[in-house]
Amino acid sequence: MDFSQVKLPPIMDMNADTITENTIAMNSGNPDLRSKYVLERLVHHLHDFARETRLSTAEWSQGIQFLTAVGQICTDVRQEFILLSDVLGLSLLVDAIDHPKPAASTEGTVLGPFHTHEAELVTAGTQISKDENGEPLLVICTVKDTNGRPIHDVMVDIWETDSGGFYDVQHADKDGPDGRCAMRSGEDGVFWFKAIKPVSYPIPHDGPVGKFLMGVHRHPYRPAHMHFMFDKPGFDKLTTAVYDRVDPYITSDAVFGVKDSLVVDFLPLDAETAAQHLTEEELKNLSAWSLLKYDFVLVSEKEAAGLRDANSLAALEALGKRMKVYNGLPVPDVD
Amino acid sequence: MDFSQVKLPPIMDMNADTITENTIAMNSGNPDLRSKYVLERLVHHLHDFARETRLSTAEWSQGIQFLTAVGQICTDVRQEFILLSDVLGLSLLVDAIDHPKPAASTEGTVLGPFHTHEAELVTAGTQISKDENGEPLLVICTVKDTNGRPIHDVMVDIWETDSGGFYDVQHADKDGPDGRCAMRSGEDGVFWFKAIKPVSYPIPHDGPVGKFLMGVHRHPYRPAHMHFMFDKPGFDKLTTAVYDRVDPYITSDAVFGVKDSLVVDFLPLDAETAAQHLTEEELKNLSAWSLLKYDFVLVSEKEAAGLRDANSLAALEALGKRMKVYNGLPVPDVD
Repeated sequence: MDFSQVKLPPIMDMNADTITENTIAMNSGNPDLRSKYVLERLVHHLHDFARETRLSTAEWSQGIQFLTAVGQICTDVRQEFILLSDVLGLSLLVDAIDHPKPAASTEGTVLGPFHTHEAELVTAGTQISKDENGEPLLVICTVKDTNGRPIHDVMVDIWETDSGGFYDVQHADKDGPDGRCAMRSGEDGVFWFKAIKPVSYPIPHDGPVGKFLMGVHRHPYRPAHMHFMFDKPGFDKLTTAVYDRVDPYITSDAVFGVKDSLVVDFLPLDAETAAQHLTEEELKNLSAWSLLKYDFVLVSEKEAAGLRDANSLAALEALGKRMKVYNGLPVPDVD
Repeated sequence: MDFSQVKLPPIMDMNADTITENTIAMNSGNPDLRSKYVLERLVHHLHDFARETRLSTAEWSQGIQFLTAVGQICTDVRQEFILLSDVLGLSLLVDAIDHPKPAASTEGTVLGPFHTHEAELVTAGTQISKDENGEPLLVICTVKDTNGRPIHDVMVDIWETDSGGFYDVQHADKDGPDGRCAMRSGEDGVFWFKAIKPVSYPIPHDGPVGKFLMGVHRHPYRPAHMHFMFDKPGFDKLTTAVYDRVDPYITSDAVFGVKDSLVVDFLPLDAETAAQHLTEEELKNLSAWSLLKYDFVLVSEKEAAGLRDANSLAALEALGKRMKVYNGLPVPDVD
């Protein structure tokens, strides 16, 4: 880039009142309308935060050190900035914004860092966990559209921890995928499998985010849950999870994933359902089994896009700006 | 910490509207009133930023990757998060908040990453630069209080780049401090020294912050300047710099350090002043010399503290909150 060609707004005198408009003016040469708008709001909020709190140099310096430590602990298999986003409620919020759900559909929730693409594609009825210490669980689900019609051939990813609260990828000596699978829904929208009853577990808390949680007197636990991800062309991708109603952490999830509509009961497995789904060997141990039933409802891509646009319009109107759509994302409509 | 003892607010149902109050409620067990308040405002602004921009998952992910890269490039001698704070105008703002200046005093500006504590303590008249390619400069300054009384025995740190635009610490093969010194003001508040005329230079732009600047079509240059830092018990510490009026980057400093009151003229050195300050050897080359004169005015610690309190009161009142001071910093006064 030839900097002598860059025409910048002529700005000079900086103080606590002028710095925000000056910073935005300096960024105004950005040719991408969307990132220009996102950056403008970022600078506004960053500066307002400092002005409102009268942020001291010592506090600013602590913040710099904290963010540096968060970055430095990241590796190929550890993403501490996502963890930070999770415990600040940002991850949940961004999912809610990007995947808005009408009332009749299944809500999404945080993806978490433990989804992988190495799950085995299995057929209905497979036991996805090799953990012999887990309590056995039968899971029977359906997947439908918002008009109640079954959707077949949806690719469903499912993942959960072992009975010790660890995902397979957290074991250095793991031997292939465990506690996870991919399967396709049938003609009737049904998919079912065997697993173990999920348990609560702490998020990684031996790094800067863990120290932050201790500092504000928060625990690092997530209530017991099972993850699901749904993918079929024409439908908005759904990343969600169901949570155990009786878990002691159900009202204090460290990463804010719980939604009322995703709270479930793990019921005793009745003899009739058991007879239809368990093997003779499994039936001998029937009293140890629980049953999870859940009906998932997917939103069409078109309906999700319409909701996103309506929400964008409302958000920009609330700021007193007219909206236009640029590369599929909202920007203010300025002439 | 025994997490079973931690009493958290009973929260559960998370959506784009409830997540902010829920996150703040979850952080409300923080026993430190000040960090609790700072964190509350941080969560508000972070969430409002995402809601207003309708931040997409892809954009959020870009942000996570950017912050991770900024953290990963940091070393003992490179602080990319401070650089990021600088180019977003935050560093200038925090200095303005923490060191408020009444009208009659010298304004502060960004410290930058190149101050060190290894400068030599020198006496009046010393040449602080060993760079033979620099244009010679005579600098004559005074330091006074807001009533115009000279302040003696102020410790003054001065630092500048060489004629190539590099500070001594940026040279791997540097041989002791160069282009920097510490000196004390005399009884009459005067301090003077010889140096080289400062030049404009780019901030480090081979990392993520440099990529960011390119992306928004900003150049990485700072206008020519000389740094000063003043320290004397009873006075608010002043970190400042003076900027060359005719520099091509004077209206587009990459880190927003320029203030009208800090813009100076480098004048031809007149014969009378030269005769009083230069050696016979130096006088032979008089036409090559420039002169910089500047009068610095320090604020008393008491006056600065009073201004900080008044500004804090105004900021919290603007948010509709009553203020109290907690460990020297403002928090809302809630009973």
